[in-house]
Amino acid sequence: MKSLKNRPIGIFDSGLGGLTVVKSIRQCLPSEDIVYYGDTARVPYGNKSRTTIVRFAHEIMAFMMKARVKMVVVACNTASSLSLRSLKKTYPIPVIGVISPGVREALSVSKNKRIGIIGTKSTINSKSYEKEILKLGGKACRFFSKSCPLFVPLVENKFLNNKITYDVAQHYLGEFKSRDIDTLILGCTHYPILKQVIKKVMGNINLVDSSFVVSKEVQMLLDKKDLTRFSKKTQGTLKIFVSDDVEGFRSAAGIFLKEKIMVKKVVL
Amino acid sequence: MKSLKNRPIGIFDSGLGGLTVVKSIRQCLPSEDIVYYGDTARVPYGNKSRTTIVRFAHEIMAFMMKARVKMVVVACNTASSLSLRSLKKTYPIPVIGVISPGVREALSVSKNKRIGIIGTKSTINSKSYEKEILKLGGKACRFFSKSCPLFVPLVENKFLNNKITYDVAQHYLGEFKSRDIDTLILGCTHYPILKQVIKKVMGNINLVDSSFVVSKEVQMLLDKKDLTRFSKKTQGTLKIFVSDDVEGFRSAAGIFLKEKIMVKKVVL
Repeated sequence: MKSLKNRPIGIFDSGLGGLTVVKSIRQCLPSEDIVYYGDTARVPYGNKSRTTIVRFAHEIMAFMMKARVKMVVVACNTASSLSLRSLKKTYPIPVIGVISPGVREALSVSKNKRIGIIGTKSTINSKSYEKEILKLGGKACRFFSKSCPLFVPLVENKFLNNKITYDVAQHYLGEFKSRDIDTLILGCTHYPILKQVIKKVMGNINLVDSSFVVSKEVQMLLDKKDLTRFSKKTQGTLKIFVSDDVEGFRSAAGIFLKEKIMVKKVVL
Repeated sequence: MKSLKNRPIGIFDSGLGGLTVVKSIRQCLPSEDIVYYGDTARVPYGNKSRTTIVRFAHEIMAFMMKARVKMVVVACNTASSLSLRSLKKTYPIPVIGVISPGVREALSVSKNKRIGIIGTKSTINSKSYEKEILKLGGKACRFFSKSCPLFVPLVENKFLNNKITYDVAQHYLGEFKSRDIDTLILGCTHYPILKQVIKKVMGNINLVDSSFVVSKEVQMLLDKKDLTRFSKKTQGTLKIFVSDDVEGFRSAAGIFLKEKIMVKKVVL
């Protein structure tokens, strides 16, 4: 039996977006093995109900338990917002999401404590970011949130830095301008791909990519629980599983991850 | 046991869009009972693989068989394109899709037999419309096809008749202008909602809404097989089942269907 330290880290997302978390963890913790699950047959999660997202998340967790992971990162903001509490209650391994790390980062970089949050409909409706800001930052913080449901299809269809994407960003983010925010949480793994466009609209404010900062949280948690893997290998393994077509995923993954990947299909 | 004639017509779609077919069949065949399934937990289908769509379609067909329907309309263009042949082979009841009816209508209204086709990525990649045009219209026909993957999220987010939607339509449809087409098949149940915008870009050409013309095909098929229901009731029943949240579906259904509906959740 593999010692606990040598077991992989499980990471899951509705589709491709969680690969930004994979990338960040591979940079930060290169010795760790990773098992990734992208639920591409049922993507997107962002406009679906809490009950459905919780059901999907539990199905994926059952897969992760079979893969004998030592911890799980819910790399999807929607699944983090809607299912994290239920997953934490149910499984005996550590499960972390992307909400708390994002909020911590936002609070540390914001000077005026006026923070904008953008995400999918389900993430924004869940108020998960707002609750976490109040919990970690207190009542002096001000937050302003907005769902941006067209950002995901724009990214997935490679409308990355053109006029249409700019107009959509203007449509969604325009209202933040009068709010005097100095920090904007990109509360969806796809949104960092649109950083340039968002910056054009919002000017010089802090953009918080929670999928990037989550790797620090993973590192702290592994250290605290004495679960960090030390290995002379320069790079741990990366096993990717998806619920839809392997080829489609592999070709699209290049937007997020610049390494050759092996992908297998597993329907849950 | 219900006589065959009195059994309902089954209609299914990845989500809401198939309600345009429901509407059309309720106008054309008001006595017929209808069972509708919208696979809202796994919507959209349009960017997923053939294997996955065939699997989903068979799961829904099994539900329809349990509901003892007398025939099934695959109201989703993607599912029609990718799964119809497999469903026809497997089940003992008539199954029809939206591709043939759309092509028949296009051929009957087109004068110069130069036809444009727009649809989801999966529909366009399957070449289902092209094959049907060649089969029914012969080699003299010319066709030009283009996938328009942003149209579905635009409709679902109620970007119906604004500048952004117009620019996206211009982006996708611009290339048709030099093709001298006189007819455009709207090969996705969501696209008729964008008729106004599409007309603005394309000018005065025929727009074929296959979900609308499919009701004629249903009527012909029922008459031919002696399965038409005659009833003094002015309106048959409509039972709607979805795989995700009932409330979300009911509130969004108004874009497509102007009657009060009862919706139940059934996960397959």
